[in-house]
Amino acid sequence: MAGQQNASTRRTFLTGLAAASAGALTANSQSLAAESTGQRDRRAYALIKPDDVVLFQGDSITDAWRDRNRQGNANDVSALGRGYAFLIACQVLADCGPGVKLYNRGISGNKVYQLAERWQADCLDLKPNVLSILIGVNDMWHKLDGQYDGTVEKYENDYLALLDRTKKVLPDIKLVICEPFVLRCGAVNDRWFPEFSAIRAAARRVSDKFQATFVPYQTVFDGAVNAAPPQHWASDGVHATMAGTSLMARAWLGTVRGGVRTSR
Amino acid sequence: MAGQQNASTRRTFLTGLAAASAGALTANSQSLAAESTGQRDRRAYALIKPDDVVLFQGDSITDAWRDRNRQGNANDVSALGRGYAFLIACQVLADCGPGVKLYNRGISGNKVYQLAERWQADCLDLKPNVLSILIGVNDMWHKLDGQYDGTVEKYENDYLALLDRTKKVLPDIKLVICEPFVLRCGAVNDRWFPEFSAIRAAARRVSDKFQATFVPYQTVFDGAVNAAPPQHWASDGVHATMAGTSLMARAWLGTVRGGVRTSR
Repeated sequence: MAGQQNASTRRTFLTGLAAASAGALTANSQSLAAESTGQRDRRAYALIKPDDVVLFQGDSITDAWRDRNRQGNANDVSALGRGYAFLIACQVLADCGPGVKLYNRGISGNKVYQLAERWQADCLDLKPNVLSILIGVNDMWHKLDGQYDGTVEKYENDYLALLDRTKKVLPDIKLVICEPFVLRCGAVNDRWFPEFSAIRAAARRVSDKFQATFVPYQTVFDGAVNAAPPQHWASDGVHATMAGTSLMARAWLGTVRGGVRTSR
Repeated sequence: MAGQQNASTRRTFLTGLAAASAGALTANSQSLAAESTGQRDRRAYALIKPDDVVLFQGDSITDAWRDRNRQGNANDVSALGRGYAFLIACQVLADCGPGVKLYNRGISGNKVYQLAERWQADCLDLKPNVLSILIGVNDMWHKLDGQYDGTVEKYENDYLALLDRTKKVLPDIKLVICEPFVLRCGAVNDRWFPEFSAIRAAARRVSDKFQATFVPYQTVFDGAVNAAPPQHWASDGVHATMAGTSLMARAWLGTVRGGVRTSR
């Protein structure tokens, strides 16, 4: 019944937004026509329901200067940071309506085991319906810096254990696993390979194991460097610029709208 | 010749980005297909050339917590704020490449004559190729607050004089005039009307006079309230929420991509 009610709320919201697009069209038909059509496609979110709690987890790429003093507030401009989580949240709120609650709890420097240490407060207590995780680049970077001695196997096993634990508490959770990525510039050089590729492959295996929705970020950025130098997308090779952040949000939304594979 | 070179740079950039989309498609064909097509449409920017300087001007809606200490830097995450200018900048940089330089110089509380007072430093000195202005809500709000005694005529005349002055210094500038808008909630009640409608009409006349590209924000939000309550789009009736900001960015990009009318 709740599901039916949600579907009905959602239909009402989408019908209204179609009217909004139509209104804009009256005023400025030529230019907004394509945009409006795009909006209709965008609103076909397969994975996010109108009352879902959506949580973004990860490291600095997710953190993105978020205000931790405000992290208890859903849909808070400062608490969502200035990265892909913020760009996604703006679009999801516009497309799915006021019932969705979005949080960002990424913390700079985190590796998987550090997510685990704060998982009760920073994930399970929030009871997310949709959990998006981007983690892995520090498992490599901190090793090269001599700050860490973990292995790809530890990354994969820690990740599997974290999701096992999550599914035990929240069996209906919908998982989005974002592929760790780097661009060959800034801090990223040959020393990162082939081990970083092994981390990416491990993330994919983890996603497959849990039938998660997988966002192929490395593939997106590997293509983007045909258009502009790697620095345009991530100036230090790791942290997305505004341009890179825009690509990240598009790829996430494109994947989640399609809802290719979910744990439901 | 410069124009031809730009066109060539632009083609190279777009071809590369199409390859990026194609790469993403290989990995996740079903879900990213629609998104990729959307990206191709989005990249058809009629108004912004690959080396253009784009300046956002206005009041608090444009300001949006930008870091004024960093305002001299183009394409700076903090300097662009957290409003529609930031969302637009992310997409423009992803779509048009690293040559575009975007600035935000909106200041909270400004009315048109206050833009004029700082116009040399905050507009003309930056030599923008594309100038986007959203101004007008304070011309009304501050009157209702008893802080100001201007009229609609003063708003229109000040606006015309500002653009006259701009075109004299920068004759090839491309102008984007954003319609002032309010939603009926928070601070906005019957006292605002019909005078606020007269301000909107004046903005439209100014846009027509200068053959600017006009972004019909009031029309967009009038439609949006069919989908969700006004507070969802602007909690105080004036300042866009994240959802409202997303609609603003889409309408701006949709209009500017189309390039309905420009001063060129």
